Amino acid sequence: MITFSDRGVIMPSSPIRKLTPLAAQAAAKGVKIYHLNIGQPDLPTPQKALDALKTIDRSILEYSPSQGFLSLREKMVGYYRKFNIDITPDDIIVTTGGSEAVLFAFMACLNPGDEIIVPEPAYANYMAFAVSAGAIIKTVTSKIENGFALPPVEEIEAMIGPRTKAILICNPNNPTGYIYTAEEMEKIRQIVSKHNLFLFSDEVYREFDFTGAEYISTLHLEGLEENVVLIDSVSKRYSECGIRIGAIVTRNKGLREIIMKFCQARLSPPLIGQIVAEASIEGTEDYSKAVFEEYRDRRNFFMEELNSIPGVFSPAPSGAFYTVAALPVEDAEDFCKWCLTDFVYEEDGKKETIMMAPAAGFYSTPGLGLNQVRLAYVLKINDLKRALLILRKALETYNSR
Amino acid sequence: MITFSDRGVIMPSSPIRKLTPLAAQAAAKGVKIYHLNIGQPDLPTPQKALDALKTIDRSILEYSPSQGFLSLREKMVGYYRKFNIDITPDDIIVTTGGSEAVLFAFMACLNPGDEIIVPEPAYANYMAFAVSAGAIIKTVTSKIENGFALPPVEEIEAMIGPRTKAILICNPNNPTGYIYTAEEMEKIRQIVSKHNLFLFSDEVYREFDFTGAEYISTLHLEGLEENVVLIDSVSKRYSECGIRIGAIVTRNKGLREIIMKFCQARLSPPLIGQIVAEASIEGTEDYSKAVFEEYRDRRNFFMEELNSIPGVFSPAPSGAFYTVAALPVEDAEDFCKWCLTDFVYEEDGKKETIMMAPAAGFYSTPGLGLNQVRLAYVLKINDLKRALLILRKALETYNSR
Repeated sequence: MITFSDRGVIMPSSPIRKLTPLAAQAAAKGVKIYHLNIGQPDLPTPQKALDALKTIDRSILEYSPSQGFLSLREKMVGYYRKFNIDITPDDIIVTTGGSEAVLFAFMACLNPGDEIIVPEPAYANYMAFAVSAGAIIKTVTSKIENGFALPPVEEIEAMIGPRTKAILICNPNNPTGYIYTAEEMEKIRQIVSKHNLFLFSDEVYREFDFTGAEYISTLHLEGLEENVVLIDSVSKRYSECGIRIGAIVTRNKGLREIIMKFCQARLSPPLIGQIVAEASIEGTEDYSKAVFEEYRDRRNFFMEELNSIPGVFSPAPSGAFYTVAALPVEDAEDFCKWCLTDFVYEEDGKKETIMMAPAAGFYSTPGLGLNQVRLAYVLKINDLKRALLILRKALETYNSR
Repeated sequence: MITFSDRGVIMPSSPIRKLTPLAAQAAAKGVKIYHLNIGQPDLPTPQKALDALKTIDRSILEYSPSQGFLSLREKMVGYYRKFNIDITPDDIIVTTGGSEAVLFAFMACLNPGDEIIVPEPAYANYMAFAVSAGAIIKTVTSKIENGFALPPVEEIEAMIGPRTKAILICNPNNPTGYIYTAEEMEKIRQIVSKHNLFLFSDEVYREFDFTGAEYISTLHLEGLEENVVLIDSVSKRYSECGIRIGAIVTRNKGLREIIMKFCQARLSPPLIGQIVAEASIEGTEDYSKAVFEEYRDRRNFFMEELNSIPGVFSPAPSGAFYTVAALPVEDAEDFCKWCLTDFVYEEDGKKETIMMAPAAGFYSTPGLGLNQVRLAYVLKINDLKRALLILRKALETYNSR
């Protein structure tokens, strides 16, 4: 029998993969599902970006430069300047989504067997990209009772061994919504500097900082010019996940040269996506403000309602549009499945239920997060209200079976 | 000092990478360059596809399914049927260009240290993707004096060892334009079957078969249902390289499940590219016929003119839009550089030169192809005529220095 690669066999599936067919079966039975499980924004893409799509005047949809269009990278420089991040177009490599940015960063920096320290819970696909590169993710646990703050420095340092090559943070965090404080960023800076590690920093949610907390990018940290590899994406901020445009930003010239070899092999990032992304960056200030206010209002509503459900606890997220909640159940995955297979909320002849992502899939340490779910609040407030009513009823029914 | 990954350091650069800055310098001096070096078609994208771009009616450019839109895969099934390839939409995974298809096929099938046998000269980026996956490319040499036919079966079998996991062919071939005969395809079938290998088959140039030779897809070969992994792309056939839409087609269900894990990690292929690709497939028969006839005419003109230059020999390619030519020079790379740095053809006040790809970069065996170049005939006939006049003059001047 023909055999597949070890990496392919061990690669984890997405935390919601097992639920997807169950959701399809529920939908086929006419049940409306409120999707709290995915970070697909429901807000429109900026009109300026949609217009750019319609006014493309090209007769050949040809390759673009492997590094991405200079005009796009120049606009990105202006964008970063608003966050006091001072870089040049040369520092930017346009990628096919933030996903390719993570993959190429790992591929260029890490040998098989090299270790990356990542606070958990963490975005599940980091694991998939680490498996692709043969690298090993070692997690330090951030705790729900501490609001998912950075784990103690001693715990991080205790994990550093001879194969440790990098620390990866996601800030604002997916799945927890946590934003690292200035003090925490300084601790990270010191560890990275002391051990001369790469610092991969996924900052795709930087616009979504709801508490007025100071956003500190890893590119603000002094003395880490050779260490910091920023992962970015236009997907979430402009509601254009489908165009697949992301970026790697690093001041490490040697690293950029290595990454460019991977970029040249895949020829170019998407041409049309770059045109849309470029049109999204300038002249969209009103759009960004409206989107921010909408998510902020949803967050404020959602968190208050969520925590009012008996037995539910979720620390208020400072940013992004996710939160991790502890539910009054032993096995959140079983509860999430049950919501799709056995539970229907019926009112006025309508059949409804909710889909959530079991949080255990965001932890590497076995046994953690078993009673937790990740909830994305990317629905309209009325739909969020309905979804939380259904969650409340579902928990009552589930726990009185 | 912070170090990069071994794979990043050893990854080869593109065969023309060293020439690119030289071409930029020549262009900056006002020299017009005829690009025989790249396979970027100069023919327009189908109007139907460009129209589809302008009529996209979506307010959110959201994620598409990780496997690609079903509607696109259904259209592809109809496309393959025209080539007597009988598959279902389930057999198709839409990828971000043919590049991602090669990478994911390698990632899913090969462990670090596993070997792939590839006839050389070969598309240089296969090497880059093999390095990404930690796999090792072993080449068997096809010879210019045999028109780059399949090397003898004995040579291929002699390379098969305990780590051999796959054979990779490109048919019609880039860079040679060769199309494997029915007899050669049967030999490949037998070897693959006997040793139970994967057969990766890059068939992105299937429309470009100029001699009426029977095109035999690996998907036509009986008994290889579990072995064949077809790599495809809409880039060349519809002149839409920039949209980054390719595909993996395999009847091996277990393999598709593994590959889908890599697809899910990168979330989705480009949304807009899929819309453009889908619009390109049906109702473009006249376009495809016109494109075919244009390339056929170019080929016929180009090959006759090319071989009329003293000392030049290039076997007539059956397909694709490339040919490999032996030049009357010892070091074709030096000659290619010299054309950009030291040579200018001047007439009527116009300064012109040519850019070619040194063929040594398409061979893995050191010392092979040193006097060869790869030429892409994707220019208008008048420009090809001019480019070959310049090549003739450049060779005269170079050899009488």
